[in-house]
Amino acid sequence: MSSHVDLLICGAGPAGLMLALWASQYDIRTRIVDNKSSRIETGHADALHSRTLEILDSFGLANSFLSKSCRVNELCAWNPDQKNPSNIRRTQRAKAQREDLSRFPQSTLNQGDTEQILLDYLGFKNRLRVERDTLLEHISIDKNACDEDDAFPVQAVLRKPSEPKTTTGSKTDSSDTDRETIHARYAVGCDGGHSTVRQHLEMKLEGEKTNKHFGVMDIVPLTDFPDIRNSCVIHSDKGSVMTVPRENRLVRLYVQLDETSDDEPFDGGKLTLEEMAEHTREMFEPYRMDFAVCNWHSVYTVGQRIAHGFSHLDRVFLAGDAVHTHSPSMGQGMNVSMQDAYNLGWKLGSVLSGTTDRRILSTYNSERRPVAIELIDLDKKMCKFYSEGPSSASKEYEGFRNEFSKFLSGVSVTYKPSTLMTESTADYSATSEDFASRASLSSVQSLAKGITLGQRMPSHKIVCQSESRVVHLSEMLPSNGKWRILVLAADLTSPRRLRVVQNLGTALEKLLEKYPSREDNKHSIIEVLLLHSGSRASIEILDLCQVYHPWDDVLGWDYWKIFSDDAYEFEPCDSAYEKYGVGKTEGCLVVLRPDQHVSYVGPLDDLEPVRSFFGYFLNGGTS
Amino acid sequence: MSSHVDLLICGAGPAGLMLALWASQYDIRTRIVDNKSSRIETGHADALHSRTLEILDSFGLANSFLSKSCRVNELCAWNPDQKNPSNIRRTQRAKAQREDLSRFPQSTLNQGDTEQILLDYLGFKNRLRVERDTLLEHISIDKNACDEDDAFPVQAVLRKPSEPKTTTGSKTDSSDTDRETIHARYAVGCDGGHSTVRQHLEMKLEGEKTNKHFGVMDIVPLTDFPDIRNSCVIHSDKGSVMTVPRENRLVRLYVQLDETSDDEPFDGGKLTLEEMAEHTREMFEPYRMDFAVCNWHSVYTVGQRIAHGFSHLDRVFLAGDAVHTHSPSMGQGMNVSMQDAYNLGWKLGSVLSGTTDRRILSTYNSERRPVAIELIDLDKKMCKFYSEGPSSASKEYEGFRNEFSKFLSGVSVTYKPSTLMTESTADYSATSEDFASRASLSSVQSLAKGITLGQRMPSHKIVCQSESRVVHLSEMLPSNGKWRILVLAADLTSPRRLRVVQNLGTALEKLLEKYPSREDNKHSIIEVLLLHSGSRASIEILDLCQVYHPWDDVLGWDYWKIFSDDAYEFEPCDSAYEKYGVGKTEGCLVVLRPDQHVSYVGPLDDLEPVRSFFGYFLNGGTS
Repeated sequence: MSSHVDLLICGAGPAGLMLALWASQYDIRTRIVDNKSSRIETGHADALHSRTLEILDSFGLANSFLSKSCRVNELCAWNPDQKNPSNIRRTQRAKAQREDLSRFPQSTLNQGDTEQILLDYLGFKNRLRVERDTLLEHISIDKNACDEDDAFPVQAVLRKPSEPKTTTGSKTDSSDTDRETIHARYAVGCDGGHSTVRQHLEMKLEGEKTNKHFGVMDIVPLTDFPDIRNSCVIHSDKGSVMTVPRENRLVRLYVQLDETSDDEPFDGGKLTLEEMAEHTREMFEPYRMDFAVCNWHSVYTVGQRIAHGFSHLDRVFLAGDAVHTHSPSMGQGMNVSMQDAYNLGWKLGSVLSGTTDRRILSTYNSERRPVAIELIDLDKKMCKFYSEGPSSASKEYEGFRNEFSKFLSGVSVTYKPSTLMTESTADYSATSEDFASRASLSSVQSLAKGITLGQRMPSHKIVCQSESRVVHLSEMLPSNGKWRILVLAADLTSPRRLRVVQNLGTALEKLLEKYPSREDNKHSIIEVLLLHSGSRASIEILDLCQVYHPWDDVLGWDYWKIFSDDAYEFEPCDSAYEKYGVGKTEGCLVVLRPDQHVSYVGPLDDLEPVRSFFGYFLNGGTS
Repeated sequence: MSSHVDLLICGAGPAGLMLALWASQYDIRTRIVDNKSSRIETGHADALHSRTLEILDSFGLANSFLSKSCRVNELCAWNPDQKNPSNIRRTQRAKAQREDLSRFPQSTLNQGDTEQILLDYLGFKNRLRVERDTLLEHISIDKNACDEDDAFPVQAVLRKPSEPKTTTGSKTDSSDTDRETIHARYAVGCDGGHSTVRQHLEMKLEGEKTNKHFGVMDIVPLTDFPDIRNSCVIHSDKGSVMTVPRENRLVRLYVQLDETSDDEPFDGGKLTLEEMAEHTREMFEPYRMDFAVCNWHSVYTVGQRIAHGFSHLDRVFLAGDAVHTHSPSMGQGMNVSMQDAYNLGWKLGSVLSGTTDRRILSTYNSERRPVAIELIDLDKKMCKFYSEGPSSASKEYEGFRNEFSKFLSGVSVTYKPSTLMTESTADYSATSEDFASRASLSSVQSLAKGITLGQRMPSHKIVCQSESRVVHLSEMLPSNGKWRILVLAADLTSPRRLRVVQNLGTALEKLLEKYPSREDNKHSIIEVLLLHSGSRASIEILDLCQVYHPWDDVLGWDYWKIFSDDAYEFEPCDSAYEKYGVGKTEGCLVVLRPDQHVSYVGPLDDLEPVRSFFGYFLNGGTS
């Protein structure tokens, strides 16, 4: 058996499923295989940080998660009571996260439910089906074919349960498994810490394990500890515990175990749940801490490792645990894994569907590896803090956590200048990757002080011009593969300003025509959105150039692309222009990637840099 | 074939499905039958008003509706241009509804999708299955058995497709249909304007049809009419049109047709879609109004009719179109029908599950018929306004609509004093239904000026004490059949106040024990919620009496019953105590029915009226 696919995804955990979500947005042939026979049942990764929820929201899934998950709203620090050090007492309470970081709060949900929501998305309308019980036996790349656009340089051998042959009504083949060779244009290993893909391609992880160990339990607590529904860091004189509130009355506990020495191998499997529970009981004194229900428990040893590179010849990529492992203490593992896949998915989709040059694929490694490096650096600090407690740490947990909460939330990740990212005139530098080709192409960051080049676009409330409806900008940025040009048009009641925006419209129309969608000839892979700074009543949609409200012979005008900045007339909120730091008489133009990251900020009256920007990596239409 | 059920629901439109939603909350035997072979596909009723969404939210369904539906945010009035009367021009713009009426906006969605969401709910965990293609041939009541609690006085004969008999692998019975006689304790006719149930029980509708006719179309408009994504009332010199924005780019148009005379029978079926479209085109001049897609259209004649009574011996009930019909001009039909069923469902459920005396069933007629009367009265005024236009109407549409928007939203419906509803000391009256038995039982409305006896409890933002999480009170009031005592405990940092609330707690504990749930012996059918007026940090949950945070040997404390009034610390909003008009040092106690309507408001230091109130209709436990 042998077959050809555009994209082979190995591993159907959160990273693999996220990649599949993206793949399902494009007209490409994708397969996703997993060696396990079913998804994870419960436990495992349980934190959903803000940026992850924003990403899930861009697939229309945020409500599914929010309705099942638990919010983490408060952090509490507990330490030995100075009068009676064998008892703990609360020393601090703080909000888990600043409200203005994201419209989505820190949340928690067992990994099984998370995977199921993603599987349900893929199952809906038969988008994509995970092939279970399927083992990757071998994967290799034909180096000589890598430079050909049309090649299938990746070869993978799968072993999977044989399909029953029903020609005569009964099984004629007695073998239990079939082998299949897949020829793929691209493949991605989302197959975890022991990644088979990584091993076959001889990509090594660097770093090592420590002698620090933690027990993990998901329990329904029987306790009089007052902060059990908040996230706590407890330093007792018998060791440290972290607590995380969860869905369905569950609480996750991370319990510090005794350190081992180098010559004493640690066997986590020997530790019983009852031993873990007993250890926990001691740390919570004087409070009771028991349980009748424990629906998952495990033991882990702290270790931080990272792969030297996240891709092999830009034909096979690795994401998530396959290229970075660390402690679960910050709840980052699954989040960063899904964010890896989110970064990679649209790039593969747009290259495979033919609209984009495959040179953009190198940005996966250049954008995501620095995130993993930062994460591992932070993780080391955090583990030290957890293990050593406040006596050695210079700061309280909350202060420590606040410092990094933007990173933890995922919203501050900033991609460096590259083919897909202009740089600000202010930080112009001859050292950046492909500077030469972008000499004339720089952003004017000062036009939008509240929008940071390289970061995901912040979302604020705006009003849909046609429906008088308050929406979040992010609702208008679904993950469908489109690039977006956001025209912050300023005040359109000024005739001079209106003229600029209308002229820009004419230029935009030509730009969009140059890059048609491959699914139909009507639409472009670039979408234009307009946000003016005036009140809704100050303009009429149909007075504006057609690119701002495209016509369709069957569907009529598109009424959902023009917005006003007077949401505060409807509900308590701030002006989006003020939040974005954009002048209400000046305006600006912002280019957003399909993953909502800001590629360019520039003036309204010059589309040339944008034309050049797209010209470097988008393939024009044939017409 | 013959069988016994507790509840037979005839008709699986929105009213019947709503009743089924309620029935699925109780441990009772319910069947729901419908003569059609599938749900409605599209079109039909399309308005979802605020109270309906609140009700759907209480079953956890609001997000399903909000993610599919369209919001109606703005109303526009258009009238003949005075200079050129054959052209229309905009004369007014207004918000569709005051923001403070409800947390849910006016929304629209085709009836097919609405039914499907309700069917999905019933299908989940096999709650209840609609029996399709099943005709009600006959229904009757054995009058002599009606007074017996254990009787099955309702007899219904159903004709339905025969089940294939597969004993020998092939069908042995050649008949196409089976007959089944059902003996039911109660039955409800939700079978529409031509209700078979109503006809068999010889319950008549009163009122009549008019000579006014409207065409209805659901189209994707091809138009340059600027307000097409808002709700418009257009009076042109060629007649009136109403527009309602809908999901998926659809717009519903109600187009006024020529009036007929009494001796000229109207045949709506003769009117073609093209004739309707041509008529519409003329009214929209000077704007273009065409379409390539029309996914539903119909013609109706205005008429207002109501049944003399909504029940027969309080054993068979009628709901929705079966007892009241009117024009669709206010989008009320489906909403009031579902609200009828919502009123009836928990009453039948609690009587059938044995916790409640069946005398409460008479309140269905006494509570819902006045709503239908008010609706029909309004509908007549509205139809006159639509037909005759602004020349004869004294007010603009918006003014007219504002006046009634509270009624239209459904949140102002106020049930009168009855067994299930105390009355305020202020409006004490010897004429009310069962005054004698409630002489000592009156509410002190002045303790909570923002909570109206008889109305549904308004929802404001509060903070879950244990999780530091902002919630809407309504999220704590799911439709699960429980009565609720909301203790507005005032400031618990005052030792005197704390003592009152602790004493109340002891008394509440005894009250709850008296009325155990029939599903388990651990819980009561009454639930206690506490909202204190202080800041969250001012109290610790476990310092309060156990009734406020019940213990379970497996699940531990219930941490989700105590709330603080400092949501404004987390997001821009008002104090709930201020909104409820409750003194922050005085507090009060509010009794909420399972349908969230307010039965009683009284002081914290006297539980006697509440004990008496429940004593009249709740059946105590056996222990």
